[in-house]
Parts: sequence; C-alpha cells; structure tokens
Amino acid sequence: MTAMTRRGDVVVVGSVAYDGIETPREARDDVLGGSATYFSVAAGLFCTPHVVAVVGADFRADDREFLLRRGVGLEGLEVRDGQCFRWRGRYLDDFNRRETLETRLNVFERFQPVIPPAWRSVPNVFLANIDPDLQHAVLAAFPAPRLVVADTMNFWITGKRAALDRLLPHVDVLVVNDEEARLLTGEHGLPRALRRLGAMGPRAVVVKKGEHGAMLWVDDEPFFVPAWPIEDVIDPTGAGDSFAGGFVGYLSRLDRTPTSDDLRRAMVAGSVVASFTVEGFGVQRLAEVTPEEYALRLGRFRRMLTVEGEGEA
Amino acid sequence: MTAMTRRGDVVVVGSVAYDGIETPREARDDVLGGSATYFSVAAGLFCTPHVVAVVGADFRADDREFLLRRGVGLEGLEVRDGQCFRWRGRYLDDFNRRETLETRLNVFERFQPVIPPAWRSVPNVFLANIDPDLQHAVLAAFPAPRLVVADTMNFWITGKRAALDRLLPHVDVLVVNDEEARLLTGEHGLPRALRRLGAMGPRAVVVKKGEHGAMLWVDDEPFFVPAWPIEDVIDPTGAGDSFAGGFVGYLSRLDRTPTSDDLRRAMVAGSVVASFTVEGFGVQRLAEVTPEEYALRLGRFRRMLTVEGEGEA
Repeated sequence: MTAMTRRGDVVVVGSVAYDGIETPREARDDVLGGSATYFSVAAGLFCTPHVVAVVGADFRADDREFLLRRGVGLEGLEVRDGQCFRWRGRYLDDFNRRETLETRLNVFERFQPVIPPAWRSVPNVFLANIDPDLQHAVLAAFPAPRLVVADTMNFWITGKRAALDRLLPHVDVLVVNDEEARLLTGEHGLPRALRRLGAMGPRAVVVKKGEHGAMLWVDDEPFFVPAWPIEDVIDPTGAGDSFAGGFVGYLSRLDRTPTSDDLRRAMVAGSVVASFTVEGFGVQRLAEVTPEEYALRLGRFRRMLTVEGEGEA
Repeated sequence: MTAMTRRGDVVVVGSVAYDGIETPREARDDVLGGSATYFSVAAGLFCTPHVVAVVGADFRADDREFLLRRGVGLEGLEVRDGQCFRWRGRYLDDFNRRETLETRLNVFERFQPVIPPAWRSVPNVFLANIDPDLQHAVLAAFPAPRLVVADTMNFWITGKRAALDRLLPHVDVLVVNDEEARLLTGEHGLPRALRRLGAMGPRAVVVKKGEHGAMLWVDDEPFFVPAWPIEDVIDPTGAGDSFAGGFVGYLSRLDRTPTSDDLRRAMVAGSVVASFTVEGFGVQRLAEVTPEEYALRLGRFRRMLTVEGEGEA
C-alpha cells in the first residue's frame, strides 16, 4: 500500500485489554477494553480509526472481528507471545469511586508502537495515556500531522516529567483532569493552570471531569459541556476514552485545521458519545449506537445547554 | 403600612449568622453570614429582598446598616435577648471539602418566623433551609404567592420527612443536591429521582453541584449550568444561597409566572452571582458587584455555554 493522504482517518496509539469489572450490581471478566478500543469504537461513529497497540496470543478472534466490523483498521495491532494487558477494578458508592484491584501489563509492558508506513500520512493522531517517550516516538513517524491530541496521567507527570515536557510542544490538544492540570503546572486555580499549560505547547486543553462533564480551554476562554444525565449507569469504564474518541473523531471528519468553534462542537460530540458508553458493559452499548439514536440524544443534549432569548438574565 | 402588591419583591425566611471561617490561606471570625444574608444580598442585584430572621442582641449596627444600604428590607428581622446563630467551619484540600467545627444555634433555636402584614402580598417567597414545619407555617401567611422556592437538607429529610411531604405540594421550585434528591426519592439515577420529586409537588427541581454547577429539571428535560471557573477561590461559604438569591431574584423581577425559559435564564443568573461570592470572604465581594461587572461576566458565562453553528456535531 502506498502512502496517501487519508482524509477523515485517525490513528490511535494505546492499549487493547481484557478488563475484569465489578459494579454494585454485577461482575464480569474478560471484557474487551483498553484505551484504544474505546477510542476507536467511539471515533468510528465519525471517521475511520486505525489502532496501534499490542495484544497477546489470547486475543480472541471474535474481538478482532468485532473491531473490523466496526470499520477499525487493525494493521497496527501487533500480536505477541504472552497474554493481553489485564486490568481489574471495582466501582464503589454507586459509581462515585473506583479502585483498581489488579493490573497485569503482560505484553503491554514491552509495547514498542510501530506505525505502518501507509498510515504515516494520516492527518489526525490520538496518543492515549502511555509512556510519554513512546508518545514522542510515535509522533516522529508522522511528518506533518494536522491534529495531535494527547492524554496523560499522574504517573507520567511525576515519573517522566522531562519526556512530557518534550512532547507538549508537539501536541495541539492535551486531555487531562483537574488534578493533573494542577500537578503539571503547580497552579491551583484552574484558569491559571490551563493558561500555563497552553504556554507549554498545546493550543487547547480539555479537562475531563467524569460525571461532571468536561471543560475546554481555548483562546483563553472556557467552554463547558456537562455529562448527559444517565437513567441507569451500568459501567463507567472507558467513558473518558470514548469522550476522546468522539472528540477526535468529530474533528477528524471535518478535514480542516479545527477552529475554536469546531473544538466546541467536538466537546459536545465527545460528551454525547461517552453517555452511551456508560449505559452498557464495556463497549457493548457504544457499539450499538445508530445514527438516529446519536442525532436524537445530540438534539436533547444541545437543548440542555440552550438558553433561549438574549439580554435579560 | 397597608398591604399592597409588591411587584419585584421577594421575602426570604432563613438565618442571619456570624460565621468563623478557616480556609487553607486565612481564618476570620464573626463574618456576617447565614442563608438569608447571602440570599438577600444576591437577590438585591435584581429586586427588593425582605428578610425574615432572628438575631441576638450582639447583632452589629454596622451589619444592619450594610444590609439596609443594599436595599434589603429588615422589618422582619427580629432581635432577641441572647446571641446570634454562630457557625464555624474549615475548608480542606483546596476547598474540596468542608468540615463544621461548631454550630451554636443560640437565638435561632427558637426561631418563630413572623411575616409582617405588609409583606403578605409579596408574590415571591424563598424558604431557606430551616425546619419544614416552619417553612410550612410561613407559607400560610401568603394567601396567593406566585413563586415559592424552597431549600432543604438531609437533616430534615431523615428527621422531618412527614412535614417535608406536606410542604412539597406548595413549592414551585425545590432546591437540593444530588444526595438529597436520592434520599428523598430512594432512586439512584438522577433523572428518575427528579421525575419522582416532580410528582411530589414541585414543578421544577434545581440540583446544586457546588463547584460543578447546577442542574435544572423542568418539563422532564435537564438544563445545566457550570460554575464559572474562578481564578482564586477565597471563601466558598454562601455560594449555594447566593445562587438561590440570583435565581429567585431574577425570577422575582420578571413579574410573571416563570416559563421554562425564564427558569433557564434564572439558572444562569444564579451561577453568575454565586461566582462573585466565592471571590471574597463572606458577602464582601458579592456586595461590591456593579451592574457592569455582572453584565461582563454574564456575557462570558453565556459564551461558555454557546456552541456556534448547527447540525454538524
């Protein structure tokens, strides 16, 4: 396959895993998960995702087929001897807290992402939450990406700060949570922290707030999306990566350098997509979303943000 | 004074107190506080508030003058022998948690609200968080209120449930937090809890989420306002009562039975007003807000909710 511009495509580098999930109502093992899985199923609602990840010999054929049927490109999914990344966690207090019971990196421990040559012209790249040295190495494979979005976490902020600092100038949109924004900048007040993050490189910052929604900081202005109020939360696992998938997937489809308003609309897309994820175990519900369902919830979601009439308030 | 229709007026029944407040940076004693204080200073930005509350002989003349200068009616402020209600609290973890160090009800323990006859035709009533039997007794003094908004808390939900159930059919808008909505209804999922609350009487429910904003549930639809991102939080005390003051004050000025869109605009007003409160100790910053400052932040706030362009997301 020769390199070519692939409009509307996005490459995601992250994890494909099997999760053990305990909720207040139910427990399941071997649930297909991982950041790249949630991201790509979500992004697939808008564009064509390509996964760069590693799995073990125990990766199930029906999970591969499931992803392929969703239109997810798997040429970058390396299969190694050994076992898939496994994570086990439990939700407490009606989903308000989560504790990790077990993490086995397995083949993920020596993950060395390789970007298939044909994908190097894909204009949109999502770097899920992995070692920032790997994130940086991945970026080197893309000569001229149009949109680079990166996630990170406390573990890398405290343990690999220098690598993260090298990465940030190459990132267009950084995805963090409140605590990570404060840890990265030493600023408690969120506006000041986000301004300082902007000075480290990213043009925009997305602050994930879980059940409380997400904030975008761009052009020194805040923009806010709530989380859609869910009737019955089944499993919150992967909501953040689904949000990222909706956000980046929406922008990838646009085929232009995103404007601030594009970024705002992408926040809405991300929040709507994530609202489906938590309504089922793993990616089950997300994978069933029809364009009609998406459009219906999008309409109700936008109405949730709408103040009719100007001036008076 | 004869009874007359007082358009744009609101009566608030609640507490006037002296607070001792410790934040991670500063501690102050004898800060003028209480639900009726925050509410009335906030509502005073939109309409004329009238306070029904009780204070002790130690209530300071300059605090009385401060409220009068803000246009707050104090004919219903009873002075009794004894001390004002005193509360002491401490903010932990950069304001994410609060612990109460001391509560002395003092004269508030035997509070028996009396509505001055001239105020019985005031169309708008806010029942701050007090014993629901008292809230109910207060309402009896208003033959035909147009808007009744009530706040409550866990203490009354578990301890005075029957009284609360009697009150709710007379309440137009109930103000609670997530936990209280769940406790009142036994429903964990918020949409279902709010629907059930609606069936208990209130036409609309406001769910306060502190630093995460607030949700309105009306006509079986959610509406959401975030909290304005604050550069430097100084003292979050009274943010909820300030929100209520902005919300009810905005509606009181309209001089009509609120439409759903009025309620949405009132949510924005409440959130903008509360954002000023936390920028100073007690009501200090709130009391200084100019119409120009309010209009400026309102514009930025509305922009924070605005998604330009339709259809695409």
